[in-house]
Amino acid sequence: MSKVTHDLPPLYIITPTYRRAEQLAELTRLSHTLMLVPNLIWLVIEDAYSTNSLVDDILKRSGIRYHYMIAPMPVQYKNKTKGPRPRGVSNRNKGLEWIRENAYSGAFYFADDDNTYDLTLFNEIRYTKTVSMFPVGLITKAGVSSPIVKNGTFRGFYDGWIGGRKFAVDMAGFAVSVSFFLSRPQASMPFKPGFEEDGFLKSLAPFEPFEAELLASNCTKILVWHTQTKKNEPAWSLDYSKYNNTNLIALKNILV
Amino acid sequence: MSKVTHDLPPLYIITPTYRRAEQLAELTRLSHTLMLVPNLIWLVIEDAYSTNSLVDDILKRSGIRYHYMIAPMPVQYKNKTKGPRPRGVSNRNKGLEWIRENAYSGAFYFADDDNTYDLTLFNEIRYTKTVSMFPVGLITKAGVSSPIVKNGTFRGFYDGWIGGRKFAVDMAGFAVSVSFFLSRPQASMPFKPGFEEDGFLKSLAPFEPFEAELLASNCTKILVWHTQTKKNEPAWSLDYSKYNNTNLIALKNILV
Repeated sequence: MSKVTHDLPPLYIITPTYRRAEQLAELTRLSHTLMLVPNLIWLVIEDAYSTNSLVDDILKRSGIRYHYMIAPMPVQYKNKTKGPRPRGVSNRNKGLEWIRENAYSGAFYFADDDNTYDLTLFNEIRYTKTVSMFPVGLITKAGVSSPIVKNGTFRGFYDGWIGGRKFAVDMAGFAVSVSFFLSRPQASMPFKPGFEEDGFLKSLAPFEPFEAELLASNCTKILVWHTQTKKNEPAWSLDYSKYNNTNLIALKNILV
Repeated sequence: MSKVTHDLPPLYIITPTYRRAEQLAELTRLSHTLMLVPNLIWLVIEDAYSTNSLVDDILKRSGIRYHYMIAPMPVQYKNKTKGPRPRGVSNRNKGLEWIRENAYSGAFYFADDDNTYDLTLFNEIRYTKTVSMFPVGLITKAGVSSPIVKNGTFRGFYDGWIGGRKFAVDMAGFAVSVSFFLSRPQASMPFKPGFEEDGFLKSLAPFEPFEAELLASNCTKILVWHTQTKKNEPAWSLDYSKYNNTNLIALKNILV
């Protein structure tokens, strides 16, 4: 389904994921979106100590070129009892490592498994020359996170999330050129909750916010939404004596 | 993208929708799934007094054969102050009316805009001869809603939702043959919160639960998930004096 068309720059999609009741559903619908995008390589990296055959099955069935890897959160963060943990950072750094070793052109994008993407987005970001930026819908109470653009030029960031950031952008609000990234051998994402994007973009220095390429018709369109799926109860209980030898045993086994 | 292949029975997808912050995102990702399904006709029916050009644009860009209609909830229900309202019933009955007037073969399925569908599901339900049933994942605290199957035969329903129903199934858990439906000229969905599925399936009488065709490998697989998206604040406030002549005005205009 996903055709390799060599006249288009390759697009690397880095998707961190983790095991939860909604995981297979989220990866299923994201796979449908990505199946419609040509010349795409999907890097799916799970915060786990081993891969999961149910995830691999979804990836395989999609027909997309993919690499399924694992990158557990370091134990010092995993065992944190207070405050937020740096979720997805191990995963994304693993994706970045893969790109350093295997890619040389095109662009990459951090695409969480629960967001919603307009197909137009992928057509635009694959041509990123340094770092491109664009609005993300459904972000915090501010409704949107976006560069502020006036007369076609960058004037700052509109973002309802925490202050104190040089790059006040969401993880879904920017894409990076592979060759630009390769020219910054130190670039990586810090294990710093709330400052992952900011820290990663700072690690691409020299690079200033005003240098961002403004996509989505000068940031007047929403091509990605920060949709969040309601959490479901993990591990529903099942009375095995009552439902022995029924299909419910099989269903229980494929759910978290 | 969605090819008309006349060797496959047509599949009619009835999707009720309504205006909210998440609507365009939900329809966008559902459209990607449906773009991958051949010989599909998408009936999108909005609870509104007029259609919305932003919705129509998503449908048009998908390349799917579609009919975008409106069916507002009757005022006596809309103005209800106590208890749940029969959401989506007007929409689904409008879809059923359309099918009575325009379809003569294949099958139909009620597909809400926030659920997640495995592509395999569509291949299976289009061959429905009467009414087919299958498990729905992520339903209530029970984790799943499904027919109970033992030794290949129907043994009842497993469903964590309200009791007192002959057909304890979720809206996403069954599909209906068009010709079977046409042979029941009185069939429709009642404006009865919690009993919409039960009432509709009862209106297909004579039809008993044990007669359901059991899909998804005898109901041992999850091919549809009842994913629910977190609600976002409607209408974020924007200081127009501060952001005048910037892209934020355009973004504000396309959001709810």
